[in-house]
Amino acid sequence: MDSARSGIQYIMRLSLSRDRVTFSDLARAVDGIGGDIVALDLVRSEGAKTVRDLTVELPQPALVDALKAALERLPGVAVENISDRTFLMHLGGKIEIAPRVQVKTRSDLAHIYTPGVARVVEAIAQDPTKAFQLTLKRNTVAIVTDGSAILGMGNLGPRAALPVMEGKAVLFKTLANVDAFPLCLEVSGPDAIVETVVRIAPAFGGINLEDIAAPACFEVERRLEEALDIPVFHDDQHGTAVVALAGLINAAQVVKKPLPALRVVVAGVGAAGTAITKLLLHVGVRDIVGYDREGVIVRGRSYPDRPIWEEYAAITNPYRRTGTLREVLTGADVFIGVSTGHLLQPEDLQVMAPGAIAFLLANPEPEIAPEIAQEYAAVVATGRSDYPNQINNVLCFPGLFRGVLDSRARRITMGMKVAAAEALAGVVRPDERGPDYIIPGVFNRSVVDAVAEAVSRVAAAEGLARRARPTV
Amino acid sequence: MDSARSGIQYIMRLSLSRDRVTFSDLARAVDGIGGDIVALDLVRSEGAKTVRDLTVELPQPALVDALKAALERLPGVAVENISDRTFLMHLGGKIEIAPRVQVKTRSDLAHIYTPGVARVVEAIAQDPTKAFQLTLKRNTVAIVTDGSAILGMGNLGPRAALPVMEGKAVLFKTLANVDAFPLCLEVSGPDAIVETVVRIAPAFGGINLEDIAAPACFEVERRLEEALDIPVFHDDQHGTAVVALAGLINAAQVVKKPLPALRVVVAGVGAAGTAITKLLLHVGVRDIVGYDREGVIVRGRSYPDRPIWEEYAAITNPYRRTGTLREVLTGADVFIGVSTGHLLQPEDLQVMAPGAIAFLLANPEPEIAPEIAQEYAAVVATGRSDYPNQINNVLCFPGLFRGVLDSRARRITMGMKVAAAEALAGVVRPDERGPDYIIPGVFNRSVVDAVAEAVSRVAAAEGLARRARPTV
Repeated sequence: MDSARSGIQYIMRLSLSRDRVTFSDLARAVDGIGGDIVALDLVRSEGAKTVRDLTVELPQPALVDALKAALERLPGVAVENISDRTFLMHLGGKIEIAPRVQVKTRSDLAHIYTPGVARVVEAIAQDPTKAFQLTLKRNTVAIVTDGSAILGMGNLGPRAALPVMEGKAVLFKTLANVDAFPLCLEVSGPDAIVETVVRIAPAFGGINLEDIAAPACFEVERRLEEALDIPVFHDDQHGTAVVALAGLINAAQVVKKPLPALRVVVAGVGAAGTAITKLLLHVGVRDIVGYDREGVIVRGRSYPDRPIWEEYAAITNPYRRTGTLREVLTGADVFIGVSTGHLLQPEDLQVMAPGAIAFLLANPEPEIAPEIAQEYAAVVATGRSDYPNQINNVLCFPGLFRGVLDSRARRITMGMKVAAAEALAGVVRPDERGPDYIIPGVFNRSVVDAVAEAVSRVAAAEGLARRARPTV
Repeated sequence: MDSARSGIQYIMRLSLSRDRVTFSDLARAVDGIGGDIVALDLVRSEGAKTVRDLTVELPQPALVDALKAALERLPGVAVENISDRTFLMHLGGKIEIAPRVQVKTRSDLAHIYTPGVARVVEAIAQDPTKAFQLTLKRNTVAIVTDGSAILGMGNLGPRAALPVMEGKAVLFKTLANVDAFPLCLEVSGPDAIVETVVRIAPAFGGINLEDIAAPACFEVERRLEEALDIPVFHDDQHGTAVVALAGLINAAQVVKKPLPALRVVVAGVGAAGTAITKLLLHVGVRDIVGYDREGVIVRGRSYPDRPIWEEYAAITNPYRRTGTLREVLTGADVFIGVSTGHLLQPEDLQVMAPGAIAFLLANPEPEIAPEIAQEYAAVVATGRSDYPNQINNVLCFPGLFRGVLDSRARRITMGMKVAAAEALAGVVRPDERGPDYIIPGVFNRSVVDAVAEAVSRVAAAEGLARRARPTV
C-alpha cells in the first residue's frame, strides 16, 4: 500500500468528543484537501473524549496547515500534535547501546564487572594493544563533527548535527556491522577539535570526520593523522572523492577514453573538489582545471586570501588555461561539479569534447537539470537518488571502515582510497556497464565486501595492517 | 551444571596429533591435577592434526600452569592458547551500537538520512531542547574516566579502563535500559577532563564520572556541574554514599536506634568517605569522626597538605575527639570502613556501643574478616558478594540515571540522593528486614524502578525536571 503512495504521511493526534464528531466528518475533511486516510488508531479514552492518531497522506506538505484548519473547524475536534514519518523515525534517537554479553547471574556479573574484570584491566595495562581484542576498540568508529557545515546547511552547531551523525551510525551498522558513535563537539576552531579527538581516541579503532567546514577540516585531518595510530578519514572530502573516482573509471570505459588522458574541469574548489582532484592526479590524470567563484584557478597565480586555492593552483592547470567556465570547458572531456545549483547553461556542455562526462554533484539542486545535461553529455551522474548514477558517500564509508577495522590499519592512504574506488567500480560488471549504470546502487550487497577486501589487502601490502583480515 | 561448580573455567586450545593422543590421555592429565573436563570441541581438522578447545574447570587458578605442563608432556599435544571465561566474555568488547530504525529501502534512507534528516536538523537548530526528543541525548549517558584510579588498582590509563566502563555500560542497559557509552580519556589533570566533557556533552543526557583519583575528582565534578545543564554524578563518591545510607537506614531500624542519634566513625577519608559523610550530615547525623593514615581528623586542626582532610575537619568531629582508632570507636554506634584490608582488630569492635553496626567496604579485603566482625557487631555489611548485605554501587547508578533521564533533570541534588537511598532501603520490607538483610540484592527487580521513581519525583518537586516522568 505504502509503495503506491507518493505523498508525505503525517500523524495528527486528535482529541475527539465522542458524541459530536464521526469518522465521516474526519474523512470529509481529509478528502476536501485531496488527502487520504491511512489509519485512525486509538491512543486513549477519557470519559466522553477519545484521543486518536489520524494517519493521513497528503500530496504536498503545504496542505498540512489547510487540513489542520479544516479539522479544527469541525465541532468537537482539537488537533493536539502533528508528526510526519521522518520525525517519528527520529523520535527518541536512532541508535542505542546493546550489550554483547548477558548478565543474569552473580557469576555473569563477577566475570564482566568486578572482581573478574580486574584481570582484563591488568592484561591491557601490561599490553595496551590488547584493547583491540578485549574492548569495543576492535569495531568502533567515532563520527566526529563540530556542526560547522551540516549537509551544506551551514554552521548550526553540535546538537543540530546529531540526527545526521546518528543516521550515519545506523548506516555503518546496518551496511557493514561497524559500531559508530556520534561525537558532536561544542568547540570552535581546529585546535579544540584536534585536542578533543586525541583525548577520546583510546576507545576507538577509527575516526570519521564529518561536516566540518573548510579550511579547518584540512588542518584537523592532517594533525589527527600525525597524532593518532588509528585511521582518520574526512568523509566529505575522501568519501566523495572515492565514489566519484569509481564512477569516472566506469564512465571513461563507457566513452572509450583512457582515464589518464581525460581533460577535466572541476567546479567548486572546496573540501570535496580538492579531494577529488588529488585522487585523480594520483591515478595519473594530468589536465585538471579548477573553477570557483572568482573564475578559473591558474597555475602561477597567487591567492593570498584563499589558502585552498593557493595550494590548488600549484598542483593543477599545467597548461595555465584561463577564461570563462565555458572557455575552459571547450574541448574538455569531464565536468565535475561540487558547486551550486544552476551553475551551467546547456551551451557550457555543448562545447565539450564528444563523449562528454558530466558529474553534477551540487546538492540539493544539481549544476544543471540532469534531463537537460543528458541531451549534451554521454554520461551524466548526480548526487541524487531520483536519477541514474548516484554518487553517494554511502557507497564508500561503510566498506572502507570495515576494511581498516578488519586489518587494524594504522591509517588510510591514497593507495587504499584508489583500491576502494577500483573495487567499487568493479562491482558493475562490464556487461552491465553503460551510460545509465556506472556506479552500483546503495543497497547493492556486494559493495561493502568488495571495498573492505580491497582496503584490507592494500593495508597489508603497504605494511599498515596490524592483523590479517579474517576470512569468514 | 555450571551452578554446581565452584572453580574457574579455562578453555585450552590444543593442537593434537590424531594417532598419538587419545581422549583418555587428556582426561588423565586433567584428573591428575584435580580438574574436571567440561567439554572438548573441535575447532578445525588439518590432515593428521586436529585443533580442539578443551574446557576444564580447576579448583584454583594456580593449577592452570600445572595442567599446561601436564598436557605438554603428552606426546602429540601442543597447547596453542589458554583463555578463561572472563577473557572470553570480554573478547571483541562487551557493547555494540544497535540501530533503533530499519534501513531497507530508499524511502527509509531518505527519512533517516539525507534528504529527510535536514528537516530534523532544522528543527533542532531552531530549538536545541528538541535534541532531547529527536536524538540519542534522550537516553544516553557518558561514562567518563581518565583511568587514574581503576578499581583501586591505581593509575593504569584510559585503555585499561575500557573493560570496566564497558561492563558498567552493560549494567546500565541490562538493568535500567539506559544507553551508556565509555569515554576513556587520554588526559592529565582536571582541567583537561572538564574541558573535554564540556565539549562532548551535546550528545548526552547525563555524565557518570568513574574511577577518577581524588582530589581531582572533586574539582572535576564541581566544575562540570557549574558548566553543564545535564546531571553530573561521580559514582565512586555518591553511588557508594547512596547505597551506604540505604543500608544504614535499615541497619538503624534493626538495632532500634534513631538515625540522627548515631555516633559514626568513618575510616578512609577519600572520595567515598567524604561523600558518605556529607550525605549522613545532610540527613541529620551529627557525630561523625573521620580517621585516616595520620589518625583521627579533628575539627580546628589544619591539614595544609591535604585539602580533603582540611574540608573534612571543618564539617565533622564537633566534639573534637582525639586518640587512636580504638579510642574513638569506644562507645560508637557505627563503623564505616572505606579504607584498606585488615585495618581492624576484634578489640576495636568490642569497645563499640551495644548493637554496633560495621560496614566493611574495603576492596577486595574488608577491614576485618566478616565472620569475626559478626561476633562483635549486630549488623555487618561488606562490599563483597559472598557475604550478606553487599553495599554495591550497582544498586544505585542504573535507577538514579533512569530517574534523571526520565525527568530530564538538570542536576542531581542532595535531596535526590537521599530519596534514592530511602527508596532503596524501602525495597526491603519491614517484615523481611534483619541483621542479614538490610539491603536488596543486585538482581532485585524492584530496585531500579523504586530508585528512578524517587529521583524523578524529587527532581520535579525541586523544579529541576524538564518533563514529567512517563508512567508506563
